[in-house]
Amino acid sequence: FLTQTAGIHPKTDKLFHNHHDLPESDLMFSIGGDGTFLDAVTMIRNKKIPMAGINSGRLGFLADISMEELPKALDDILNKRFRVKQLDLLKLVTEIPDFGDFRCALNELAIQKRDGSSMITIHTYLNDEFLTSYWADGLIVATPTGSTAYSLSVGGPILHPSSQDFVITPIAPHNLTVRPLVVPNDVELKLKVEGRGGTYLASLDSRSCILDEETELIIRKAGFSVSVIEPEGHTFYSTLRSKLMWGADKRN
Amino acid sequence: FLTQTAGIHPKTDKLFHNHHDLPESDLMFSIGGDGTFLDAVTMIRNKKIPMAGINSGRLGFLADISMEELPKALDDILNKRFRVKQLDLLKLVTEIPDFGDFRCALNELAIQKRDGSSMITIHTYLNDEFLTSYWADGLIVATPTGSTAYSLSVGGPILHPSSQDFVITPIAPHNLTVRPLVVPNDVELKLKVEGRGGTYLASLDSRSCILDEETELIIRKAGFSVSVIEPEGHTFYSTLRSKLMWGADKRN
Amino acid sequence: FLTQTAGIHPKTDKLFHNHHDLPESDLMFSIGGDGTFLDAVTMIRNKKIPMAGINSGRLGFLADISMEELPKALDDILNKRFRVKQLDLLKLVTEIPDFGDFRCALNELAIQKRDGSSMITIHTYLNDEFLTSYWADGLIVATPTGSTAYSLSVGGPILHPSSQDFVITPIAPHNLTVRPLVVPNDVELKLKVEGRGGTYLASLDSRSCILDEETELIIRKAGFSVSVIEPEGHTFYSTLRSKLMWGADKRN
Amino acid sequence: FLTQTAGIHPKTDKLFHNHHDLPESDLMFSIGGDGTFLDAVTMIRNKKIPMAGINSGRLGFLADISMEELPKALDDILNKRFRVKQLDLLKLVTEIPDFGDFRCALNELAIQKRDGSSMITIHTYLNDEFLTSYWADGLIVATPTGSTAYSLSVGGPILHPSSQDFVITPIAPHNLTVRPLVVPNDVELKLKVEGRGGTYLASLDSRSCILDEETELIIRKAGFSVSVIEPEGHTFYSTLRSKLMWGADKRN
Repeated sequence: FLTQTAGIHPKTDKLFHNHHDLPESDLMFSIGGDGTFLDAVTMIRNKKIPMAGINSGRLGFLADISMEELPKALDDILNKRFRVKQLDLLKLVTEIPDFGDFRCALNELAIQKRDGSSMITIHTYLNDEFLTSYWADGLIVATPTGSTAYSLSVGGPILHPSSQDFVITPIAPHNLTVRPLVVPNDVELKLKVEGRGGTYLASLDSRSCILDEETELIIRKAGFSVSVIEPEGHTFYSTLRSKLMWGADKRN
Repeated sequence: FLTQTAGIHPKTDKLFHNHHDLPESDLMFSIGGDGTFLDAVTMIRNKKIPMAGINSGRLGFLADISMEELPKALDDILNKRFRVKQLDLLKLVTEIPDFGDFRCALNELAIQKRDGSSMITIHTYLNDEFLTSYWADGLIVATPTGSTAYSLSVGGPILHPSSQDFVITPIAPHNLTVRPLVVPNDVELKLKVEGRGGTYLASLDSRSCILDEETELIIRKAGFSVSVIEPEGHTFYSTLRSKLMWGADKRN
Repeated sequence: FLTQTAGIHPKTDKLFHNHHDLPESDLMFSIGGDGTFLDAVTMIRNKKIPMAGINSGRLGFLADISMEELPKALDDILNKRFRVKQLDLLKLVTEIPDFGDFRCALNELAIQKRDGSSMITIHTYLNDEFLTSYWADGLIVATPTGSTAYSLSVGGPILHPSSQDFVITPIAPHNLTVRPLVVPNDVELKLKVEGRGGTYLASLDSRSCILDEETELIIRKAGFSVSVIEPEGHTFYSTLRSKLMWGADKRN
Repeated sequence: FLTQTAGIHPKTDKLFHNHHDLPESDLMFSIGGDGTFLDAVTMIRNKKIPMAGINSGRLGFLADISMEELPKALDDILNKRFRVKQLDLLKLVTEIPDFGDFRCALNELAIQKRDGSSMITIHTYLNDEFLTSYWADGLIVATPTGSTAYSLSVGGPILHPSSQDFVITPIAPHNLTVRPLVVPNDVELKLKVEGRGGTYLASLDSRSCILDEETELIIRKAGFSVSVIEPEGHTFYSTLRSKLMWGADKRN
């Protein structure tokens, strides 16, 4: 039988379809960047099919098999020389029609002000207890996987893949004492947005939609995880070192 | 004669008109927040009329006279007990119809990606020499006055009011080694934007418009400055201490 | 009979001894700042006696009962109106004579370069797997409790008290891509230090000593936790808001 | 005649002496890292001899000519194909015997707490006007040249070489609202240190000494600058891009 890869990235002309023989249809290849991988997750969902991310361009955190490594990696995979790691997702419990019936994110949920509007206030509750009101351009709730993505760009910490935490990172917070907050992933988060425009932007990974301020968002850990193939020699640490150039240091 | 304040903020119900007797019509009051003050600047422009910012709500950096201080401040002002400080502006040299004929900013010029789109690349040149390409959500070019506004929220330094520099601060930069860059205000800056959507958002203080990627932006120091009244006892340092709570420290 | 407080801070003249009647000797008061509280922990150790931190000066994260609240708090405590929260400690497994037989820290273990010497390299391993080599002034391994202390000052995130993670935060890292790393508290951390001077400084909370570079440090979660009394109305969130002024925002 | 390089770095075994024929003794080579270059500055002082920094290891900001480039760079230099840039220094006006009669720094003056002691308070004045009191591990006053050194590691911005500013950057500040402050280099800075130990550490580039708290420090711009040779093709921008890897971005 054939295993089909679903690595289709609608916004780019670097489109890849891939058909691949494997003893059983129990493997999916995402070929493209991390964005492609995230899109593929919206197709796999909770089917527990292990995914392998092959990267046609710059190496990603998710799509971390390079074209050069591909022959060896395929050989390793076919010969069962790999580990499968489980990545937690977060779930937007609130039903938002625009997000359809798959409201999970592997990286993050992000709240943002609209184009050209002023800052928004994001009242935040953990298990229905008031935490604080962020006055900012937005707020990111990221999984450990997402901690190396958008959250990192706005100053968030890196979470180890086996951390049972999420991180809440504000985007351009006005209050200078606000810091990223790491919370257990078994809490329920509630966000209420307030601003001049009356609407705000919400994103689950690369999908986004415009919401009214009345729409409160409830976020929890998803009830399933995504299985990702980690070929021999690939570890979280080696990826950190190569992707974030933790080994490299060119100042004197 | 009457001096009219033009401090009208269209988006808030805390609207104030103010008519005030003064020996000569050589003073303008902005009553509202810092946003109101910035709007008033678009009316005063290069007329060299000193402005005083009276704040109806939380104290601002620009509108730094509180309602409680108002009687004393008015008395001081009428009796010439004040200093006038000059604040530099930056000027968008590129003619953008949406910005009209006043293309200056007291705080900052900001470039941003559009709603829900992915990051943009901002190729940046100083005096026509290539500096770097920022891959980010946006980029801020701030004056010393603006260094305590948006630029500060995304990690920029504070510039002393008499600094002859601007600061270039990226918004959510993807490259983790990028840092705010302080440059002399006599350079000419050129920004070229590139992204998937083909358009981007440009703002001069609180005014913003959507531009095509073909539109390069040239930024220079404006040829005039704004005169702001600094009542007795008000200094940049005291404002820093009270506004940013530099004196306050509630950790142990 | 009597419960004696052991909250004695040798370096300050704000010294308090406290003798207190309680039905059973099952409560300890630490009177002073957070430093006093940390010292008291070195006396209580794993005895599971609940501690209450009364603060004579500025409120602390640990010593969070103010003098004004004291009468009500005492009444609440005597009438059992309080919760007991458990705070995890970390343990320096390596036997270092200078630290005696109690090598645990409620806040953090910190490694630092010596006075006036140049940066040190800290080779870091998680469960014996190489993570990275930090080239920095030092490195902090903090518990959730310690995440609001030293680690926060050097840019670390805040960890929720019930997070099962530690955070590794470098001090003045030379490599600009290095970020705080949040790791599960069931890992074993190994640190090897290298530098020009041959020695480095290691601290467990407020106790510190000088070590040779040959001395590798092994760090794990301690096998016990400290019980801390949380009076009515005191929560982690309210402390965050009041201590870090998350509610306060004096910019406009 | 001979031009002697003085690039002697006492703390490393990578010691280089260099004797070099040049038509006139009007050029000094520093061979080593940036530290060697800083040491050489203490020998050249205000003699206006242009310096060229040749780097035996990793490229530096100051020692920015690599061994591979050396033949071409030498040829360029001998044929006058280079620019000379002037780098400002700061001067510690206060007479401190340990620093001898050369109390200038090309990079920074740094104040630090002593080994294992608690934080210090640094009362800071600009032109005798009180700015604020930093409660921190230390404070850095950096020139534009020094803005890419220690100050950068603790979160300071980068200053363009022709900026007429200094930057004041706290080390591990306890107050979370404190930010780096960029001030005109024609101000006079005064620092008063207060702490439990009674002493603190002061450094001028790589030289440091221990001072009593009574010792106030006055800092100004030095009355001379250092002339540095910038070979063809070397610019501040290209150095930023290569040293800080501003071009490199390995996240997806």
